[in-house]
Amino acid sequence: MCFFVVVKRNINRLLQYRLVLIRLQELGFDTVFSYSLGREAGVTAEQVRRDFSDFGIKGNKKGGYNIDELLSSLNKIFRKDEMQKVILVGLGNIGTALVQYKGFQRNMIHIEAAFDIDPVKYKKKLNVHVYPMDRLDAVVRKCGFKIAIIAVPGVAAQEVCDRLVDAGITGILNISPKILKAPKKVVVHNLQIGTALESLIYQANLSSS
Amino acid sequence: MCFFVVVKRNINRLLQYRLVLIRLQELGFDTVFSYSLGREAGVTAEQVRRDFSDFGIKGNKKGGYNIDELLSSLNKIFRKDEMQKVILVGLGNIGTALVQYKGFQRNMIHIEAAFDIDPVKYKKKLNVHVYPMDRLDAVVRKCGFKIAIIAVPGVAAQEVCDRLVDAGITGILNISPKILKAPKKVVVHNLQIGTALESLIYQANLSSS
Repeated sequence: MCFFVVVKRNINRLLQYRLVLIRLQELGFDTVFSYSLGREAGVTAEQVRRDFSDFGIKGNKKGGYNIDELLSSLNKIFRKDEMQKVILVGLGNIGTALVQYKGFQRNMIHIEAAFDIDPVKYKKKLNVHVYPMDRLDAVVRKCGFKIAIIAVPGVAAQEVCDRLVDAGITGILNISPKILKAPKKVVVHNLQIGTALESLIYQANLSSS
Repeated sequence: MCFFVVVKRNINRLLQYRLVLIRLQELGFDTVFSYSLGREAGVTAEQVRRDFSDFGIKGNKKGGYNIDELLSSLNKIFRKDEMQKVILVGLGNIGTALVQYKGFQRNMIHIEAAFDIDPVKYKKKLNVHVYPMDRLDAVVRKCGFKIAIIAVPGVAAQEVCDRLVDAGITGILNISPKILKAPKKVVVHNLQIGTALESLIYQANLSSS
């Protein structure tokens, strides 16, 4: 279990370096030292060098890493040369906020289609096509979508998950409050804001008591 | 690092059991077996029993656990007898969605105050009082808030974090895209939806290639 967590953290750190590098590039910098990059990403210089080395990224360490080259390597690893198409199921408050979130586009992610059970949502002015739930399977199959965000209430989440997996989805970001069961070939990330907040409150209370 | 992750996961599982138990109680059940609870929470029966044992929760294993007693123990651990007061900084799309999210109230969490730099937000019809940013430090100090959600853009997140910590905040849920640096006494949970989605896409692409 720990190994998987570490691998996931490793990927998350690389993604974090990428965000820092984009900002540095926008500010006009050409090169960056591992300690500066580490400081911005909240890790040590050694961690930065180890992460790059793990993913086969090399750099001129004396004069610092070349930012353009680093970004090019990271973009290749994360396939940032092509827009990653994603669907979203459930246009509640948080689902709607995600559809409107501009940060995805900047990172070459686009929510291409959304699905909801409520006909009122089909007429909402959103920058995404909204389909009724009974079109879910057909649209996923026809367009070959592979990645989905589940933002429906907990009680409906497992059924939605099963339908998505049957239709060919291989990666699910689950922000519903229900832990989902899926076949091993499907990657599921559970991201429960409610649970994260409860867990935080518990730990903060513990450390201050 | 792994130990901390495991402890956090342990807490998250307990919170998950609690959600399952509330649903079972609403459905009229009195008792539950560890394997049923585990199935619903996506873990084994042994894991359920180990988690309960780790937190000193005992149960009549022959006839199953008594749901009322279990919930009472879990509510005590997570201090669910009192409303946990939280503040939120940054009323963008996701911040606004969180203020409107009904799931918090059900779990005895209430966003008591929100802060934003944009005067338009002060007039928005939300079920929370919205303050200008320059009131942040004074309000946190006066009301003795300890827990905050940071939902501002990445570029402003560290400054907000520093101000919150100075004012006495000891737990931060960071949903901005910036990794935050805070003193060790402060518990920070980073919950980046963008990074979670990018990391998911990377892993799903890997496992399908």
